[in-house]
Amino acid sequence: MELDKVWTNARLATLAEGEPGLGIVENAAIGAKDGRIAFVGAAAGLPTGSRAAETIDCEGRWITPGLIDCHTHLVYGGDRAHEFEMRLNGVAYEEIARAGGGIVSTVRATRAASEDDLVATALLRLDHLLAEGVTTVEVKSGYGLDRETEMRALAAARRLGRERPVSVATTFLGAHALPPEANGDRDAFIDLLCRDMLPAIAEAGLADAVDAFCEGIAFSPEQTARYFDAARAFGLPVKLHADQLSNLRGAKLAAEYGALSADHLEHTDEEGAAAMAKAGTVAVLLPGAFYTLRETQHPPVAAFRRHGTHIALATDSNPGTSPLTSLLLTMNMGATLFRLTVDECIAGVTREAARALGRLHEVGTLEVGKSCDLAIWNIERPAELVYRIGFNPLHSRVWRAL
Amino acid sequence: MELDKVWTNARLATLAEGEPGLGIVENAAIGAKDGRIAFVGAAAGLPTGSRAAETIDCEGRWITPGLIDCHTHLVYGGDRAHEFEMRLNGVAYEEIARAGGGIVSTVRATRAASEDDLVATALLRLDHLLAEGVTTVEVKSGYGLDRETEMRALAAARRLGRERPVSVATTFLGAHALPPEANGDRDAFIDLLCRDMLPAIAEAGLADAVDAFCEGIAFSPEQTARYFDAARAFGLPVKLHADQLSNLRGAKLAAEYGALSADHLEHTDEEGAAAMAKAGTVAVLLPGAFYTLRETQHPPVAAFRRHGTHIALATDSNPGTSPLTSLLLTMNMGATLFRLTVDECIAGVTREAARALGRLHEVGTLEVGKSCDLAIWNIERPAELVYRIGFNPLHSRVWRAL
Ligand SMILES: [Zn+2]
Ligand SMILES: [Zn+2]
Repeated sequence: MELDKVWTNARLATLAEGEPGLGIVENAAIGAKDGRIAFVGAAAGLPTGSRAAETIDCEGRWITPGLIDCHTHLVYGGDRAHEFEMRLNGVAYEEIARAGGGIVSTVRATRAASEDDLVATALLRLDHLLAEGVTTVEVKSGYGLDRETEMRALAAARRLGRERPVSVATTFLGAHALPPEANGDRDAFIDLLCRDMLPAIAEAGLADAVDAFCEGIAFSPEQTARYFDAARAFGLPVKLHADQLSNLRGAKLAAEYGALSADHLEHTDEEGAAAMAKAGTVAVLLPGAFYTLRETQHPPVAAFRRHGTHIALATDSNPGTSPLTSLLLTMNMGATLFRLTVDECIAGVTREAARALGRLHEVGTLEVGKSCDLAIWNIERPAELVYRIGFNPLHSRVWRAL
Repeated sequence: MELDKVWTNARLATLAEGEPGLGIVENAAIGAKDGRIAFVGAAAGLPTGSRAAETIDCEGRWITPGLIDCHTHLVYGGDRAHEFEMRLNGVAYEEIARAGGGIVSTVRATRAASEDDLVATALLRLDHLLAEGVTTVEVKSGYGLDRETEMRALAAARRLGRERPVSVATTFLGAHALPPEANGDRDAFIDLLCRDMLPAIAEAGLADAVDAFCEGIAFSPEQTARYFDAARAFGLPVKLHADQLSNLRGAKLAAEYGALSADHLEHTDEEGAAAMAKAGTVAVLLPGAFYTLRETQHPPVAAFRRHGTHIALATDSNPGTSPLTSLLLTMNMGATLFRLTVDECIAGVTREAARALGRLHEVGTLEVGKSCDLAIWNIERPAELVYRIGFNPLHSRVWRAL
């Protein structure tokens, strides 16, 4: 076997489907050819006579698939630190909103930012994710809420993948919130999304998926369905911010549209969990938002387990409800706050996160043919990735064998 | 004025006592001579004709005092990742204890570790703290529970301060837990601490303070008082793990002994808060342990504010209940979980943390005569230090002007 690179003397958590637990292989090796995994398994299984241009001795370190953050809002203007401070000082939410705070302030700052500005500020956040072994990241728009800014934000997201060695999946989150100029007319805004923004974005190839926020304070299930119908007409897969603050049966709606994922899900019921399992819609849990909002209602993890709903974990990195840029900490929160097991947490930021992006054929596990995206760790056992808080044991990171 | 170094074009949060809020100075400069702050204030106030061997342009960045983590258990053998994993898998606490888990497992691993081992593993954790701008750290013993190991752990803690540019305060936490060989006899173990360990440790100059764990599962108030009397006889100041899981009036006991700090305090009552304020005993809050243990009882922050009790924040970095090595995240947890204000959080890891170590004359604020320990930040406003989660905006770190 002719290889470009081989990593030897490693311990693997392959996350391969069908394997028990994390798919652990001791005394293992990984070989890469043309950026893809050409061999993975026990080192003894390497065909005799195999040669590699470069050999890396992992000295017994653990290798997992490169981590995947499958739900972020990394691209935006400004921040909300001042609002955070005001809230702690006892200023009421209404007063903050009257003072121009809340999501509207991020929309204003995002509209005012150039593409270069958006890229530069997003890179600061992205670099923190990469430093922890992230090799694929999803980035949503949704702070522009007009055609020009939404397209600029998505273009900025695409550029992140050219500025850094990372795969970027972009999501058009037009139905995120109502912009001020919509004057409260949600239906008219959904019309605008379907007739104007979605066609332009689909035409430009700027989005890999389409997302919406279905909630009392955002868009109704009917409005969401109309928007999803339009996405489907352009052949774009959908995702949904569902059942975060109340149960509008967003999980079920997402499943009906064969959504890649439904995200948040604190208020999802048994029926929603079952529908998602049947549709193959991944449950993306976002403990950073749960923590920041001091929520008390937990997502129905037991129901997901009962029905076999796939569970992923993501940062939800955003300026308002989850200013979080650590996927390792997200795993700890998943375990501490939602009682996910170590295996569920690690699968949630690798295999299941890949599934939530529709990219499981390409990334998310260590299997022959997939992109050679690796995270190599200074740990004694995989549980350490979840157990520690505010600690980064990454040794090195490999993206497409580089 | 002859200076070794001057930092210009800076914005300061001096944290100086008597100043409102964070003691902010814009268009400021700091000058250092012989490792100490010789000038601090508006740049316009620098005496004309001042000269410095080296000038650093801060380009408008913020400078705070170097951060201080005033409560850690950084030095220990092994970790508890496997136990963490078992608990998430539903294994009962009793079963984990029977399998040799819990604090006893850390005691076993610490006794088996050489001083070099203890230093090497603690450095991994310390380096994470330093990377976030920490310049002073407290380190407790308490996983040895025999004379030899307690002394080895304290010697390892002292060595951390020689291996890295950081000031280390050591604390003898002999009354942390009962070792297996004590056969459940707490009074006899307190005798051993007072007659054997404390004298040896005081004689060797290994501890700057003495600490105990006063709790139903640890030592009673009477046992704690006896141990404190012995510490007092050796002229060592005391601290106390108090009222974490129940109200044994540990806060009041600590105040009666003029303790530097009482720590945890979730169950402290109004009387305890008042007694601490009167005695000048600092309330050290440890949100990492609160978070990890999923506690619901909050420390009485409102009572502390009413009485003027000083409030500090620390990581409580330890393998069992707070495997946390980020003081920035600790601030976010202080705000998110305990509703501390931004100013309280920042004072809590600078001025008040210095007070909790009895070192306020030396560190903790930017004032003339103090050690020139600085943290220089890539932020637009101090609130960002508290608002972000899993993000490190440190630009650079200065310890004793180096
Ligand atoms: Zn989101
Ligand atoms: Zn402690």
